[in-house]
Amino acid sequence: MTPSVYHYRGDFPLEHGDTLREVDIAYHTFGRLNEARDNVVWVCHALTANSDVEDWWPGTVAEDGFLNPDRYFIVCANILGSCYGTTGPLSVNPLTGHPFYGDFPRLTMRDVVNAHRLLARHLGIDGIYGLAGASVGGFQALEWAAMEPERFSRIALIATAPKASPWTIAIDETQRMAIRADQTFGLPLADAGAAGMGAARALGLLTYRGPEGYNLTQQDHEDADCVLPGLPAGHRACTYQQHQGDKLIRRFNAYSYMTILDTFDTHDIGRDRGGVERALAGIGRQAKVLIVGVSTDLVFTPPEMRELSRMIPRSVYEEITSPLGHDGFLVEYRQLNAILIPFFTN
Amino acid sequence: MTPSVYHYRGDFPLEHGDTLREVDIAYHTFGRLNEARDNVVWVCHALTANSDVEDWWPGTVAEDGFLNPDRYFIVCANILGSCYGTTGPLSVNPLTGHPFYGDFPRLTMRDVVNAHRLLARHLGIDGIYGLAGASVGGFQALEWAAMEPERFSRIALIATAPKASPWTIAIDETQRMAIRADQTFGLPLADAGAAGMGAARALGLLTYRGPEGYNLTQQDHEDADCVLPGLPAGHRACTYQQHQGDKLIRRFNAYSYMTILDTFDTHDIGRDRGGVERALAGIGRQAKVLIVGVSTDLVFTPPEMRELSRMIPRSVYEEITSPLGHDGFLVEYRQLNAILIPFFTN
Repeated sequence: MTPSVYHYRGDFPLEHGDTLREVDIAYHTFGRLNEARDNVVWVCHALTANSDVEDWWPGTVAEDGFLNPDRYFIVCANILGSCYGTTGPLSVNPLTGHPFYGDFPRLTMRDVVNAHRLLARHLGIDGIYGLAGASVGGFQALEWAAMEPERFSRIALIATAPKASPWTIAIDETQRMAIRADQTFGLPLADAGAAGMGAARALGLLTYRGPEGYNLTQQDHEDADCVLPGLPAGHRACTYQQHQGDKLIRRFNAYSYMTILDTFDTHDIGRDRGGVERALAGIGRQAKVLIVGVSTDLVFTPPEMRELSRMIPRSVYEEITSPLGHDGFLVEYRQLNAILIPFFTN
Repeated sequence: MTPSVYHYRGDFPLEHGDTLREVDIAYHTFGRLNEARDNVVWVCHALTANSDVEDWWPGTVAEDGFLNPDRYFIVCANILGSCYGTTGPLSVNPLTGHPFYGDFPRLTMRDVVNAHRLLARHLGIDGIYGLAGASVGGFQALEWAAMEPERFSRIALIATAPKASPWTIAIDETQRMAIRADQTFGLPLADAGAAGMGAARALGLLTYRGPEGYNLTQQDHEDADCVLPGLPAGHRACTYQQHQGDKLIRRFNAYSYMTILDTFDTHDIGRDRGGVERALAGIGRQAKVLIVGVSTDLVFTPPEMRELSRMIPRSVYEEITSPLGHDGFLVEYRQLNAILIPFFTN
């Protein structure tokens, strides 16, 4: 399903001081906006996903999922800087007539949320019943909730954080190092830095799955002992990593990837709000807030998720049990639905 | 302290079928071999370390360390394929008169151990009282113990495994992807693939330290909020990753790094021995075996370390408590000494 695109033709000022002269925002909707306009659930997507929630979050956009289109009007927008229809580094710079590539301005998570707000206005949406985001989607949800706490009734924050941690920033920087090590990065080509991005993605996967995830799913087959030892290509874990890199190379580009990694690292809902703790204290005032962690998540660990819940007044913490690490939020949709359906219903 | 070098001028056959026409083995010794020749402690080093144990394992080669040179004759050899004096990819290939670079033959962990055995013979060492290895050092110790179980009295296996796991192989493959993404890798130059290796090393560090380690040591300074948001270079975690990459680039080379990663992945003490479990069963027969894990180790997790201990008859498991992950074995030397001194003494 191709997304709809809102062509905003006006200045879009960015937190760093630059201005985009126009912005396209690609989005999907599921279900119908009711007459009272009080059934909107806004979903924020993660790193390299797109606006088609049904595609990347299996089991959720369904009659028995927490994103039930019979009940809710579900909206998801491709994030600024990405490449699934929303303005990003491969878009044509109206000032030059050529793609931005490496000249795309630096973004912050607040810019990403401001694009969502622009789309909401375009769609005639004021109050938003439910806001849901996992991972970097949760960054957006937290940022948005901090900007306009009165706008939401239910906020679900899944495997995420109020501020990029040193650990996650170190992961991002290492991915940037892999991309910069690819000497084609910087060339004015859509596939510049592709091999570096493949390695970066494979690294991302390590952190999304963790030791338990890999040891569970990537064991060599019984007869692997017959293969000559020392041919790494023979190991299932090797081909898996290569496959993950190749898959992203086919569907993404290193300029967007870099832009989003940089944006990730700017995430800090406490900036200019007196710190994280004070910003979080304001969020639970009107909305019910649910925090969901994954038991083996290495990126946003359960202790960090419990701490997030502690800092949001009246929020509730629930945990998905999974050996699959951070990816558990995508894979364990049955547990997620069991937690989120009552939260959105009651 | 520069290492001694044993110049072995003879064929050195490799498990994969190739033959090295000569082999240099660089080594350090500490303390003196006693007359009974029964006070040898052999230390096997990890990935990118060298034979100078005193240099890379602080607090251990000391009167109050478990490697007490007043008591023991301590030997450590730089591993085959490395670049600290032992034959590796930057060594001159006697058949061509030029460095091997990418033509260096593939090694297995058994080849690495066979070079240790050659050195032991050269030094007039037969029985070895103590054998100690952490991480890839433990791979060598386990492999050697499986080859010649009768040779050792005490074997200390620290933060290691009897076989490379899918998780660790995936980590290695991702590091290889980063090196291969650097288009200079493959050129006949000592610094070919340097930027890729820097990224690979930074990735290694992520797995050695883990979330707790980074969040403890790499928090931004209080005044970092004053820095313009979104300049990743401003984050301490970013400069730390770059610094770690740069440090390795100054002291290592991508050909040796690749060789050792490949060798890592061949590690399987069960190969041609009826499987891991059977190979381990033979190890504890004559030697006392101690297994040491680190509470937050992500590379060789405590559950895996306990499982290793379970499979070695009469072995004892001890755990170092540390927030620093796998690196705990290097940093928490006080705990390590407290565990290892009585083990080697009694």
